[in-house]
Amino acid sequence: EACFKVIAPALKATALLMDVGSTKADIVAAALNTLGDKLHCFVPVHPITGKEVAGVEHSDANLYKDRALIITPMASSGATQVQLVKQIWKSLGSYITELSPAAHDAAFAAVSHLPHVLAYAVIRGIFQQKNGPDLIALGGPGFRDFSRIAASDPVVWRDILTTNREQVLLQIAHFKQALHDFEKAIDQDDPKLLEDMIRQASDLRFNWRMGSSQNSEK
Amino acid sequence: EACFKVIAPALKATALLMDVGSTKADIVAAALNTLGDKLHCFVPVHPITGKEVAGVEHSDANLYKDRALIITPMASSGATQVQLVKQIWKSLGSYITELSPAAHDAAFAAVSHLPHVLAYAVIRGIFQQKNGPDLIALGGPGFRDFSRIAASDPVVWRDILTTNREQVLLQIAHFKQALHDFEKAIDQDDPKLLEDMIRQASDLRFNWRMGSSQNSEK
Repeated sequence: EACFKVIAPALKATALLMDVGSTKADIVAAALNTLGDKLHCFVPVHPITGKEVAGVEHSDANLYKDRALIITPMASSGATQVQLVKQIWKSLGSYITELSPAAHDAAFAAVSHLPHVLAYAVIRGIFQQKNGPDLIALGGPGFRDFSRIAASDPVVWRDILTTNREQVLLQIAHFKQALHDFEKAIDQDDPKLLEDMIRQASDLRFNWRMGSSQNSEK
Repeated sequence: EACFKVIAPALKATALLMDVGSTKADIVAAALNTLGDKLHCFVPVHPITGKEVAGVEHSDANLYKDRALIITPMASSGATQVQLVKQIWKSLGSYITELSPAAHDAAFAAVSHLPHVLAYAVIRGIFQQKNGPDLIALGGPGFRDFSRIAASDPVVWRDILTTNREQVLLQIAHFKQALHDFEKAIDQDDPKLLEDMIRQASDLRFNWRMGSSQNSEK
């Protein structure tokens, strides 16, 4: 809100104001509270890509190529501004998916925020053991890829998890139920059930393709 | 054991018998039960690499290059056989780490078996939701890498999780405590604590390097 308050008076009516944050409900509320007669300038978007490292020394001209750009236009967003946003991101190579801010936050709690929490928790769970450093030194390529996102920026992710708290907690609850199912199948030594559960997850993941969202335009 | 029983009578005293499975305590017990006067031929190893896809059509001549090979020699393993195993794997480009079978199973429960269970559980947790397919379609590169191991072979992983049950359950317990810590910090809306916890995990993962195990020879 503090940022919006500073920016608003400087905007011409034809300006485009865009954010690229990982949660949307919060920034939409802030815009409604602060932008006044410049509200139509604002179009919230979220590019679905990134790196576990931050800073200009890790910049990459192809970062947005063939990646999703989620646009969550507000009822108040100007048609000109929305059109311009689409042009900008298509020219960077992104494909555009439109969602409501609430649908965005619910979906990314599941496919992004939850995996980050789990990756952080895996590292924490291992290092809380006496021989944690010895254990983790033995990790191979599977561990490397699985835990890559655990290196992500602490301030950015503190904000994401705090801002999207309710949806993140909901996804943690769904996950805990699923983990409990696996734990039970392992604990009860029920190889048939365990195999069926693994096969279901394995098939779903095998057939998953990044960028398969239906309502996309490129 | 059935396999060992068939193989044992056919082995010359100078033969090398090697397995490449993902758990070690179980196969060591089977060898002790069945190999008799050929027990010295047997050297259990575990190459720390692999793919989420199986079969000869996915073969890769460089699969073992610059990857760890864990050797878990038994007290009974012949010196000649152990030496030969090291030569074979070094010639494939692997670096060798020696562990006891029990230490191996404990470590890989943490850095391999647990991450697989979590990846399977993430997929299950998302698909158990009514709009699961819509949610997962929005996953980006972070989700792709995090969940890659969830596509792994169901029969192989049923056997690994069943064989190493106790250590896997122990690591699930450590993980659940760590997840609980994160859930509490998010739920209590304690951004300072949450940032500290993320920073700790993030720093540890950022400084982690694959193949950093101390007692390796190449």
